[in-house]
Amino acid sequence: MTLPANMLTVDGLQINNWDRGVLEELRTGGVHAVNATCAVWEGPAQTLATIGDWLVLARENPDLITLATSTQDIRAAHATSRTAVLLGFQNTSPFADDYRLVEVFHRLGVRIAQLTYNIQNLVGGACYEPQDSGLTRFGRTIVAEMNRVGMVIDLSHVGERTSRDAVEASTQPVAITHANPLWFHDTPRNKSDELIEAVTKRGGIIGCCLYPNTLAGGAEASLAAYCHMIHRLVDLVGPESVAIGSDCTRNWGPDFIGYLRNGRWLPTQGPDRTPPAPAWPDWFTGPAHFPVLIDGLAATGLDEATIAGVLGGNWLRLFDEVFPGQVTS
Amino acid sequence: MTLPANMLTVDGLQINNWDRGVLEELRTGGVHAVNATCAVWEGPAQTLATIGDWLVLARENPDLITLATSTQDIRAAHATSRTAVLLGFQNTSPFADDYRLVEVFHRLGVRIAQLTYNIQNLVGGACYEPQDSGLTRFGRTIVAEMNRVGMVIDLSHVGERTSRDAVEASTQPVAITHANPLWFHDTPRNKSDELIEAVTKRGGIIGCCLYPNTLAGGAEASLAAYCHMIHRLVDLVGPESVAIGSDCTRNWGPDFIGYLRNGRWLPTQGPDRTPPAPAWPDWFTGPAHFPVLIDGLAATGLDEATIAGVLGGNWLRLFDEVFPGQVTS
Repeated sequence: MTLPANMLTVDGLQINNWDRGVLEELRTGGVHAVNATCAVWEGPAQTLATIGDWLVLARENPDLITLATSTQDIRAAHATSRTAVLLGFQNTSPFADDYRLVEVFHRLGVRIAQLTYNIQNLVGGACYEPQDSGLTRFGRTIVAEMNRVGMVIDLSHVGERTSRDAVEASTQPVAITHANPLWFHDTPRNKSDELIEAVTKRGGIIGCCLYPNTLAGGAEASLAAYCHMIHRLVDLVGPESVAIGSDCTRNWGPDFIGYLRNGRWLPTQGPDRTPPAPAWPDWFTGPAHFPVLIDGLAATGLDEATIAGVLGGNWLRLFDEVFPGQVTS
Repeated sequence: MTLPANMLTVDGLQINNWDRGVLEELRTGGVHAVNATCAVWEGPAQTLATIGDWLVLARENPDLITLATSTQDIRAAHATSRTAVLLGFQNTSPFADDYRLVEVFHRLGVRIAQLTYNIQNLVGGACYEPQDSGLTRFGRTIVAEMNRVGMVIDLSHVGERTSRDAVEASTQPVAITHANPLWFHDTPRNKSDELIEAVTKRGGIIGCCLYPNTLAGGAEASLAAYCHMIHRLVDLVGPESVAIGSDCTRNWGPDFIGYLRNGRWLPTQGPDRTPPAPAWPDWFTGPAHFPVLIDGLAATGLDEATIAGVLGGNWLRLFDEVFPGQVTS
């Protein structure tokens, strides 16, 4: 299939153990922009150190990446065959209890933040909590502040009730950067039709996820099944609302999944506390495999314009809308 | 005296308890730019909160101030009769033990940092320490990183030996933002002729201080004595090397001096641990009094161009030189 020459590929989320090898995989896969997770459990000070890692990585690999804070930066990276890295959080832990840190981290380049990561936090409830508090009072402040400064609100690991509250509280479109519909695979990480509809009808996006736990059949899931899910979503919520959020976890050792699951909130002793890293489908094991998605989507009969939107154009449209922020009176 | 209409007034350091009233004093005094201390003992996370305070203050007082990161910003503030606030540190504590945080805080707008504040730290020795370690190995990394990103190195509260080491290690001119010569008043906070000469002959600046403890006679010091000191310094090290660093401490309660002195490193119990706030000379109690310096300097016979340099032009020249940073190979 021949796609537009100016097509931009954007991945809604990756959480790799970043090094030059991984960055080369991004180039191999033609990924022009990526929401790169730089905090999952970390607080303010630890997150500064992680951003320090990124400053060094960007300085040492200027031929491969650039730290981006705008869609202009993304387009410039595309024009020079590099990857624009958007710093992103999978938790609001870097903001601690201080809403001003939204603007502080925005100044440091952070453009996307997920409200909660798996467990209840100051902002709201999470997808794995048996009870979801809904968006808290502090959470409403955070949503308003993210709207104001121009930071994308991500609901991927957020609880259903908190997600609905956030969609309604936000004056900007929001995103599910990396999850799938519940009808594709029934797991707390995936999303109800009602939530997907609420997000997308307000201009938001769902980034379809390739993390094995979100796929029906896990590593056995087929490229065709994944692409048919996307085609069906396009039919349900429109071609401008569906994108990719691979959730790639390249280059991590076996301890990392335990850290993602347990952070510092759950004792990690015992074999049941260190889950094995899930196997990925052999047709998509990392960023280098992005081009197979183009062929897979084409095989389902999606047209070129829709595929170009799903592969990156839709993320770019959302970023164009949200990143400028909003002046509040 | 009639000074050039485009004269810019820059204060090398103020450490006020900032609020709208203090900002109005800056406007009253015609201060167009100020190095505003936003860390003395604070570590990384606490400093983020203080920067958060500044973001709110700037948003709430756009008619009075703008957060500046370049001399273009300073000139724009001058053109709109506002004060350009340069965020500054009086300690390297916000960098903790992570040299990458120099660039992180530079990204947040910090443009000046003093290497040590009164006591030994990871970077070097301080003016009140009986033994001065000299610039440490980590200190050399910090100096190189500040040179690279474009952050002014401040030696005001730094020990003599560490200061000499820093002058030699730095590839950029450095500053003594707020201190006086030892010959004017013999106190550990003031500077030897040798150090002042080393700093200024490499393009650096000494900002003459109005904090009472640095003045001969303290609150009894006369405007004439202060201005004759400046005139004498101009004769000794050249008109391009002398400036003002008032060290204003407006709007603080009595506990603040104790905090400055003792931080969290010295128990604060007991009357000897809570020194009284020193009285200021009645002719200079805050930023609103800046214009008296023009008349005072003119009375000593300094010409208009020299006064314009001392009041701000010299700081601007140093900032023009240092802020762009240096590309390292």
